[in-house]
Amino acid sequence: MASARDTLPAVLSKIDADLDASLERLFAFLRIASVSTDPAYAKYCREAGEHLARDLGTIGFDAGLRETPGHPIVVGKAEGGKGPSLLFYGHYDVQPVDPLDLWTTPPFEPRLDTLPDGRKAIRARGACDDKGQVMTFVEACRAFRAVTGSLPLPVTVMVEGEEECGSRNLPAFVQANAAEFRRDIGLVCDTGMWSPETPAVTTSLRGLVYEEVTIACADRDLHSGLFGGAAWNPIRILARIIADLHDADGRVTLPGFYEGVRDLPADIKADLDALNLTPAEFLGTVGLSDPAGEKGYGLIEQVSTRPTCDVNGIIGGYTGEGAKTVIAAQASAKISFRLVGDQNPEKIRDAFRAFVRARLPKDAKATFANHGCSPAIQLPFDSPALLKTRAALAEEWGRKAVTIGSGGSIPIVGDFKRMLGMDSLLVGFGLDDDRVHSPNEKYDLTSFHKGIRSWARILAALAE
Amino acid sequence: MASARDTLPAVLSKIDADLDASLERLFAFLRIASVSTDPAYAKYCREAGEHLARDLGTIGFDAGLRETPGHPIVVGKAEGGKGPSLLFYGHYDVQPVDPLDLWTTPPFEPRLDTLPDGRKAIRARGACDDKGQVMTFVEACRAFRAVTGSLPLPVTVMVEGEEECGSRNLPAFVQANAAEFRRDIGLVCDTGMWSPETPAVTTSLRGLVYEEVTIACADRDLHSGLFGGAAWNPIRILARIIADLHDADGRVTLPGFYEGVRDLPADIKADLDALNLTPAEFLGTVGLSDPAGEKGYGLIEQVSTRPTCDVNGIIGGYTGEGAKTVIAAQASAKISFRLVGDQNPEKIRDAFRAFVRARLPKDAKATFANHGCSPAIQLPFDSPALLKTRAALAEEWGRKAVTIGSGGSIPIVGDFKRMLGMDSLLVGFGLDDDRVHSPNEKYDLTSFHKGIRSWARILAALAE
Repeated sequence: MASARDTLPAVLSKIDADLDASLERLFAFLRIASVSTDPAYAKYCREAGEHLARDLGTIGFDAGLRETPGHPIVVGKAEGGKGPSLLFYGHYDVQPVDPLDLWTTPPFEPRLDTLPDGRKAIRARGACDDKGQVMTFVEACRAFRAVTGSLPLPVTVMVEGEEECGSRNLPAFVQANAAEFRRDIGLVCDTGMWSPETPAVTTSLRGLVYEEVTIACADRDLHSGLFGGAAWNPIRILARIIADLHDADGRVTLPGFYEGVRDLPADIKADLDALNLTPAEFLGTVGLSDPAGEKGYGLIEQVSTRPTCDVNGIIGGYTGEGAKTVIAAQASAKISFRLVGDQNPEKIRDAFRAFVRARLPKDAKATFANHGCSPAIQLPFDSPALLKTRAALAEEWGRKAVTIGSGGSIPIVGDFKRMLGMDSLLVGFGLDDDRVHSPNEKYDLTSFHKGIRSWARILAALAE
Repeated sequence: MASARDTLPAVLSKIDADLDASLERLFAFLRIASVSTDPAYAKYCREAGEHLARDLGTIGFDAGLRETPGHPIVVGKAEGGKGPSLLFYGHYDVQPVDPLDLWTTPPFEPRLDTLPDGRKAIRARGACDDKGQVMTFVEACRAFRAVTGSLPLPVTVMVEGEEECGSRNLPAFVQANAAEFRRDIGLVCDTGMWSPETPAVTTSLRGLVYEEVTIACADRDLHSGLFGGAAWNPIRILARIIADLHDADGRVTLPGFYEGVRDLPADIKADLDALNLTPAEFLGTVGLSDPAGEKGYGLIEQVSTRPTCDVNGIIGGYTGEGAKTVIAAQASAKISFRLVGDQNPEKIRDAFRAFVRARLPKDAKATFANHGCSPAIQLPFDSPALLKTRAALAEEWGRKAVTIGSGGSIPIVGDFKRMLGMDSLLVGFGLDDDRVHSPNEKYDLTSFHKGIRSWARILAALAE
């Protein structure tokens, strides 16, 4: 039997020849209004899942719906060559479309548009997130099957229908069926490229500790004329705590915070530096110009590979129109930490609480609520699967594939690691201007086409 | 003609003999539901004004209503002896009564209650604030008139109907009629005693600078996963500013803030120290125990004769239930300064704005709104009228009358000073447990009875 590497040129040719049909299949998928947050659309969610399972069935997957308390999960399994077994994750649900009047074309009537700069793009809700991305992988499998009669590796597909509403039922499903889904490598297609020219593998996801702290002083709101000067003001105490959380260099001051944080390997850092991301490029789009983070680290590191602390919300006292001379009984803030490397979320949560308590005057009490406590994910930079994937992407795009960190979290990746002991490769072809979650979502035709080709190359590389 | 001092014993006897009738007259006034904030009660406001004007007419005042764009002002003028002319200020409007279900007796059905400790008290909305207090003065005038046929001094009465809704129309009225109302001494009866045994004259009112500051960074809310570490967070900037506003000794750090602040004269400070107010007494009632203010100053000074800075409200980012990983585009705080002595409010407002601007990183902008900018009021401690008033109160109560500062402001006192060039003596008989503005408002019978007697003594003293 010919190796996957040997058959790759034919597979890529098949992909090119089949592009119009691939697009038609994606359009059919996009026409199903599988908005998962709105119960009125539940039937379309199921329809999208059935549609995908049926499609997988046509290319040799044993596929069907698995029920959950919410929307069903599509599971498909196909045998393949003798390489490592894969678990592919994606989602068939999409974001709501409102405000509908900001769409230039109906969100569930997909079409090929030409962007002002000449790029062709698929326009529809879900074009990128995540139906278009899911179909890059499915179409790569289809081409292999068409050319070779089978897949180069054993592949299990798991495509959920609740990602846009918090994946409420997925962790329990994975946990309950851990033995069934434990594979050698996870593949997740829900991320982006570095730029339209530069492919990327997301190798780290920041963890999160999210705390809400409430400082209470007097047992009632006080008149600042009568008590001002004698009564502790919880807003002032909270402001002092928040101010104390960073030093003048932008570093977080919690004792022990940087335990488990390592600097990047020199080659990886050099790759990031070579991308030469400027503040104007990254921050200019949101009206900023001046990186606020830790001194001594580049912008890309600040937002992806370094830990941070942010205040996500604060409230206390009178916040209506005009003036009220009140000293509030309490004030509260939502404060979150993004974690990297081996930072221990429970330790950091505890350090934060101790930090707050150490700054309370006698008349103040603090109460805490935790809204998140998850570690960072870091794929080893020297993992063979990662090296093969980067090489395959470089071949397709003609550029070195960078490893990037995502500042946000993709909880399923942590679930796969924890429940299945499985590392995941995060490869996707989204672009910053895809407007995911916004009106007029799109997916570049190039992302779709070269995305399919990229997966074909990755499958061939992993099979070696 | 006998001096006022000579006739005083007879006047005091008349007051004692007439107490039941005085109470009946107060009750009649209290039965009128003159809630000024609620338009539905406008007719009762007018009725209360008419009632008072009619009553003043029966004791020799040329009295009537003066129209304003809001509720009318009662003005009454009576000739009298040759002493200094007086302008008495009070208000006939009352606070709303809700929550009504917390009242143990109907708020506009006044009655005499016995408190758990045996004190007798008048129970009704307005019993203290300010109908009861106004009537202490009116009844003192009535007694003088009954005994001597006239008042010992020329008296003008100005009783407004919008104090509880911000005195919206009073300043313009005073300004427009400044020549008509310019008198030698203002008397304001809307304050309290130091304690049930110790009378007080309020000789200072703190001024107020009230600023609202909004810090804006990015042009939209950002995802803290994507931008956290690189984007300036306006809540953090605001927290730093608030934290910087005080030093470790509780002093305000605005440059020039303490210009015009003087320490108290030694004798006045000794009087305050002798009151021996403990944190437990003052702060214990609201669940606190530890004076938060400027080190080196007693509790009474902290809340009345020293300037302060408080944050009255703060809001930014996500403040709903649970978590949202957002970096807010903006955050805002309401920050106020209580002023004393000769602190210049405009200078302090400008110093605050400069202080904020000096702490803004390049990507942050600050906007300001002013909600108050008024200087402190300070009656000279050696004013003859003050010395006479303190002596008169001491005679009535058998205790030295202390001079106290009010931490809050009574804007009309500043208006009288600015528009009429007139200092005001603030004398009142309210007690801390009078529950003004709350359900079950009361006024001690002793406050009412000895309040009337106190005014008789003060009138006699000022006439000398």
